Amino acid sequence: MGRRESPYYLSFLLGLVVLVGFVSRCNGGITSSFVRKVEKTIDMPLGSDVFSVPPGYNAPQQVHITQGDHDGRAVIVSWVTTTEPGSNKVIYGISKNNLNFSAKGMRTRYKFYNYTSGYIHHCTLKDLKYDTKYYYAVGIGHTVRQFWFKTPPKVGPDVPYTFGLIGDLGQSFDSNSTLSHYESNPKAEAVLFVGDLSYADNYLNHDNVRWDTWGRFVERSAAYQPWIWTAGNHEIDFAPEIGETEPFKPYRHRYHVPYKASGSTSPFWYSIKRASAYIIVLASYSAYGKYTPQYKWLEAELPKVNRTETPWLIILMHVPWYNSYNYHYMEGESMRVMYEPWFVKYKVDVVFAGHVHAYERSHRISNIEYNIVNGECRPVPDMSAPVYVTIGDGGNLEGLATNLTEPQPSYSAFRESSFGHAIFEIKNRTHAYYSWHRNQDGNPVAADSMWFSNRYWQSGDDSFPA
Amino acid sequence: MGRRESPYYLSFLLGLVVLVGFVSRCNGGITSSFVRKVEKTIDMPLGSDVFSVPPGYNAPQQVHITQGDHDGRAVIVSWVTTTEPGSNKVIYGISKNNLNFSAKGMRTRYKFYNYTSGYIHHCTLKDLKYDTKYYYAVGIGHTVRQFWFKTPPKVGPDVPYTFGLIGDLGQSFDSNSTLSHYESNPKAEAVLFVGDLSYADNYLNHDNVRWDTWGRFVERSAAYQPWIWTAGNHEIDFAPEIGETEPFKPYRHRYHVPYKASGSTSPFWYSIKRASAYIIVLASYSAYGKYTPQYKWLEAELPKVNRTETPWLIILMHVPWYNSYNYHYMEGESMRVMYEPWFVKYKVDVVFAGHVHAYERSHRISNIEYNIVNGECRPVPDMSAPVYVTIGDGGNLEGLATNLTEPQPSYSAFRESSFGHAIFEIKNRTHAYYSWHRNQDGNPVAADSMWFSNRYWQSGDDSFPA
Repeated sequence: MGRRESPYYLSFLLGLVVLVGFVSRCNGGITSSFVRKVEKTIDMPLGSDVFSVPPGYNAPQQVHITQGDHDGRAVIVSWVTTTEPGSNKVIYGISKNNLNFSAKGMRTRYKFYNYTSGYIHHCTLKDLKYDTKYYYAVGIGHTVRQFWFKTPPKVGPDVPYTFGLIGDLGQSFDSNSTLSHYESNPKAEAVLFVGDLSYADNYLNHDNVRWDTWGRFVERSAAYQPWIWTAGNHEIDFAPEIGETEPFKPYRHRYHVPYKASGSTSPFWYSIKRASAYIIVLASYSAYGKYTPQYKWLEAELPKVNRTETPWLIILMHVPWYNSYNYHYMEGESMRVMYEPWFVKYKVDVVFAGHVHAYERSHRISNIEYNIVNGECRPVPDMSAPVYVTIGDGGNLEGLATNLTEPQPSYSAFRESSFGHAIFEIKNRTHAYYSWHRNQDGNPVAADSMWFSNRYWQSGDDSFPA
Repeated sequence: MGRRESPYYLSFLLGLVVLVGFVSRCNGGITSSFVRKVEKTIDMPLGSDVFSVPPGYNAPQQVHITQGDHDGRAVIVSWVTTTEPGSNKVIYGISKNNLNFSAKGMRTRYKFYNYTSGYIHHCTLKDLKYDTKYYYAVGIGHTVRQFWFKTPPKVGPDVPYTFGLIGDLGQSFDSNSTLSHYESNPKAEAVLFVGDLSYADNYLNHDNVRWDTWGRFVERSAAYQPWIWTAGNHEIDFAPEIGETEPFKPYRHRYHVPYKASGSTSPFWYSIKRASAYIIVLASYSAYGKYTPQYKWLEAELPKVNRTETPWLIILMHVPWYNSYNYHYMEGESMRVMYEPWFVKYKVDVVFAGHVHAYERSHRISNIEYNIVNGECRPVPDMSAPVYVTIGDGGNLEGLATNLTEPQPSYSAFRESSFGHAIFEIKNRTHAYYSWHRNQDGNPVAADSMWFSNRYWQSGDDSFPA
C-alpha cells in the first residue's frame, strides 16, 4: 500500500546546479530570474522501478481513480489486466479489513497500429458517504491489490478543500520529480490535471506501451486520489500515416470521466462539483464554434453554476489563452475569442491550462471589446475576469520553454521556466491560497503565490503576490 | 428526363413589389438600397409538386451527384429507395440508348429519433472521360430513372469553367425561386454549395422527412450537375433532448463526398480539382484548433496546390470571416484567427461562405498583424488576400438578414439583403468574371459583379466592380 518513492528523484535534483533565484520587475509583471542548469529532459527507461509491473498472476496495474458523478459521491476506479480479462469487480468498504461492498464495472480494449491494449476496466462506486476514507481492492480472484481514497466533504460554500495542479507530465526524470514533489504536500486531496499525460505519441508509431508505463508511473498517486482529467494535444494520437484516424482513441479507452452526469455528450468537456468548487473541463481540440455540442453545453452550463453552493468557479483547459512564452504563442486565441466574454460575465475565478512547458500567472485581465472595426484589442485590467495560470511544467521529455516574449506583457504577473506543480487551497467562500512550487525548492517554499478573493463573494483587486 | 419547372416561381415573383434599386456609396463600400417588399419566407407545403415522389414501384428518388475523385474523372451518384433496398447498381454510357457500363455502390440507412430513413445508395462511377456527356440510370430491376451529367474538362491552367454559388437554400418558395433562377443560367456547370441544405432541424424533432423533401426538391439540378457540398450548422442535427447526440448524422448518411481522395480523414473537409480550379472545403463546425485533424490536413494541403496546374484557389466554408450584417457578426473570428495568415500566404483567390442570409462581397483585406500587445487588429487592404463573399441568400424559411452594421465597414465592398445566387466564370489563368444575381431580376442582370484577376498570375488591384 505504501507509495513508491523513486531513487531518481534525489539523484536528479543533485544533478542540477540549483542557485537561489531573484526576481526583477518588468513592465508591471515579474519574470523570475531563478537560475538553473538547463539539462536535456530524458524519459525514464522502460526498466525503471517506477514502471515495474506489480507481481502476481494477472495483477491489476495502472490503477487510477477519478470522480464518478457530479457531486463527489461516486468514484470511477480504473485498472488494466494483461494476462486474462479477470474480474471486473471492485470490492470496497470503510474498514481496511472489511470490504463489504462490491461493484461491477465494464471492460474495454483497443488496437492501435501494431499494439493491442490489455483489458482496461472501469468501475463506478456509487452512493459513497462524503468525507470518508474508503478502502478498495481490485484483481478479485487472482492477485488482489488494495488501495484507498477519501471522498470529499459534502458540497457547500465554505468547505475547505485543497487541489493540486499538474500539467504536461510525461514520464521523464523531471516528471518523477514533479510527482514526488506534489506527493510531499500533505494537504493536496485531488489533482486537477490540465492535459498531456503520457507523451506516447512522441515515440515511434505512438508506441502505446508508453501509455502503459505512464499508467504504472502515476498509480502511486492516482490510485489514492482522484485525478480530474483534461485532454491535451498529446491525447489526440491522430496518425493517418499508420492508419490511425480516430482522434483520442487510447485516451478515451483508458481515462473515463463522468461527463454524462453534467449533461455533456462527450468525455472531452464536462463539469464536477467538489467541496466548494465547481470545475469545468473544456476541450481545446474538439469543435468549439458556435452551435457545436461543446458550445451549446457550455452556454447552458455556466448559468447553472450556483455560487452560493459552490463559490469557486474553476476552468481547466489545455491550451492557455494568455501566455507570453514564445512557445505556442497565441494558440489559444481561437477559443478565447469564442468564450472569453462568458468567463467575464460569469466571473470565473481562475483558469488553469498547460501546453506551454513553463509556469505563468496572469493579472485579472480581459480582451473582449474588440468588434473588428474599433481597434480595441488589448488585454485590459478587469476585476470580473479570471486569473489565468499556465502550469504545463510537469516535466515531460520535450523540455522546458525558456524563450520568452519581451518585454513581459502587462497581462503577465509572474513567469518562470521551471518544472513544478501548484496548489489551490480553498479556505472558505471568500479566500483561497494559491502557490506554485518549483521542483528545485523544498516543499514549503512557494516560488509564486497569491491570495485569491472569490469573484462572486469579494470581487475587489486581489492581483498581488501573497 | 426534363427538369421540372415550378409554378411557384412565377407566382412568387409576381407577388413581390419589385422596384428598381439604386446604390449609395458609404465609407468606401456600397450598401445597395434595392427596395423590395419584405415578406415572410414560407416553406413550400409537403404536397407541393417540387416534392412529389416519382411514380413507379420503388422508384429511386432524391437523385444527386457530386465529384467522386480528386481530378474530376469520377462521379458519386446517390439516391434513395423506400419500399425495398432495390439494386445498388448504376448503369451508364455516353450514348443515351446504350448504357454499357455499370458500377456497384453501397447502401446505408439511419434512424433519427422516431424517423427511419429510406435505403440510401451511393455509387462511384470511375475512370470517366473528361469533357464528356454521360447518361446514367438508377433503379435497375424496378422503376428505372435516367439522367445525365457532363464531366469537366481535363485539369489545366487555362480551362474555362463556370461554377454556380448557392448557400443556405432550404425549401421555401424563395428557395425554389433561387434554384429556378440558377437553372436559367445556361453556363453554370457545377454548384459550389456553401452549407445549410434542408433546414429539417427547424421542424419538430428535426423532422427528417424534410431531408427527403429537400432531396426531391433539388434533384432537378443536383441529378444533372455535381453539387460540391459544405457542411453548415443546419447539418449538425445535434439534439440531445431527443437522444440524438451524433453530430451530422443525417447529412453524413445522405451526402457523400470524395474526402479520402485528398487525404482527408473526414467528409467535412476535403479538396477537389475541377478544370482550372482547386477547391478546398473547410468545416466551420469541426475542430480546427492547432494539431487537430482538420488543421493538420489544411497545413499539408495548401502547399500542394500547384497554381501552374490549377490557378484558381477557391475556399468554401459555412461561416463567413468578414460579414457586416448584425446576424452572426464575428462568428467566424475563431476560425479566422487560426487560418487567415495561410490564406494570405497561399494567395487564395476567393472564399465563399454562407450562414448570413444576405449577400456581401469584401474588398481584398487581411487582419493578420495582431500579436495581442500591438493593438494592430484592423482589416487592411491586402492584394495577397482573398475576396470574401457571403452568399447565404438561398432563401430558407428563416428569412432575410436585413439589419446591417453602420457605417458600412471599410472591408465591405458591396452588400444587399436579397435572395439570389452567384456565378464564378473562369475565363483563363488570369481572369474570372464573377456576378451575383438577385432573384427579382431577370437572369442577365448582375446586381453585383467583379472581374477577378488571379492572385498567383496577376496580383494587382482588382477590387472594383466589373
